[in-house]
Amino acid sequence: MRTIEVCLSPALIGCYSLQGKTAVVIDVLRATSAMAAALASGVKAIRPVATVDECLEWVAQGYEGAAEREGQVVAGFSIGNSPLAFIKAGYQDALVALTTTNGTKAMKLSHDAAEIIAGAFVNLEAVVQYLQRGERSVVLVCAGWKDNFNLEDTLFAGAVVHALTPSFEKADDASLASEALYLQHATNLMGAIEQSSHFRRLAKLGIEDDIRFCMQTNHFDLVPVLKDGLLIAER
Amino acid sequence: MRTIEVCLSPALIGCYSLQGKTAVVIDVLRATSAMAAALASGVKAIRPVATVDECLEWVAQGYEGAAEREGQVVAGFSIGNSPLAFIKAGYQDALVALTTTNGTKAMKLSHDAAEIIAGAFVNLEAVVQYLQRGERSVVLVCAGWKDNFNLEDTLFAGAVVHALTPSFEKADDASLASEALYLQHATNLMGAIEQSSHFRRLAKLGIEDDIRFCMQTNHFDLVPVLKDGLLIAER
Repeated sequence: MRTIEVCLSPALIGCYSLQGKTAVVIDVLRATSAMAAALASGVKAIRPVATVDECLEWVAQGYEGAAEREGQVVAGFSIGNSPLAFIKAGYQDALVALTTTNGTKAMKLSHDAAEIIAGAFVNLEAVVQYLQRGERSVVLVCAGWKDNFNLEDTLFAGAVVHALTPSFEKADDASLASEALYLQHATNLMGAIEQSSHFRRLAKLGIEDDIRFCMQTNHFDLVPVLKDGLLIAER
Repeated sequence: MRTIEVCLSPALIGCYSLQGKTAVVIDVLRATSAMAAALASGVKAIRPVATVDECLEWVAQGYEGAAEREGQVVAGFSIGNSPLAFIKAGYQDALVALTTTNGTKAMKLSHDAAEIIAGAFVNLEAVVQYLQRGERSVVLVCAGWKDNFNLEDTLFAGAVVHALTPSFEKADDASLASEALYLQHATNLMGAIEQSSHFRRLAKLGIEDDIRFCMQTNHFDLVPVLKDGLLIAER
């Protein structure tokens, strides 16, 4: 039977063997939500990059630049990691270079995986179907907040674990715990998130609309899949 | 208001500031359960040490040696980290040098804290009362399994968080998640643990009695407190 595991923080990635598996990078607030939104709104491909400098290099080559640090758009950029902003921008057929505090870092750390995709509540069902169709075991990689555990990414991981049960074997304690957490909050995800540290941090920045959007399921019927350094939509 | 936080793995210790706080080291299966059992059964003090070599040096100075790796007693030692074995041994007034796979390491990593104590289900109520009596904020440090998250330590952390609510502020997402997990499994802790990776690993070693003992609450009305490198009982 295929296995499913949940890496609760990028700092724990060394505890997992990713070879031959599909890594699902999760940064619900907001990088992976924004990736799905951007690709659904006309962006052709997204290049996740680790640093602002690297992002600027791609801008010099014609990419649209998107950069977020500490929840805010980096000075000099017109867009950060807001899914609603990507929908509004409608970068038709554009290439976007994106760097964020946690999400793009988690993606880089997952490089040992056979394939890397991006997951969030906004494309939950598409991710679940993609994983079910595939033949690989799965590691869900929570981006967390500055290397620590966070609630929203764990809840999403739990939602995926639950949807893939019983066709996958839960192979670590984090998959058991994530699923239990999700089941406890499934009927009121937004309520759970309102208690969280990240929500309180982001709410100060006046982006509640974005958060509310990120906690809704199945807006987008696509999966961002990393191919040769570029995320493209698979439907 | 005092804060309470839960560090889910020794690998995440860098995410927490321990200065001025009480660190509760948690290794339910079985180091911190064994520490409480040993001190309740006549041991005068326990010196937690990182390596088997260091343990042997203390044995040469008259300590009883206790060493566990991979769930088993290290060759050449008569005791590892089994609480039932400590009860049976009854090392009256002895000094014990103890090294374990996860628990003693978590203790070393918590050295920045103002004080370090050991917690497990077997002394849950004593730990809760100790923390309530104290004046410090609290970080619960889960020893985990080889630097990764585990279920049993997180459940215990959740039990402490729940008992200390509402006199402490839950200051990170892990404290919220641990409490939710605990509340979900509070009426059947053993059932939750039987699903876990650690249980399956340890059950193969034929120590179910030990595990069952470790999952029962309040056998011992004492708290192991680290003073000058030695754990002694406070009642």
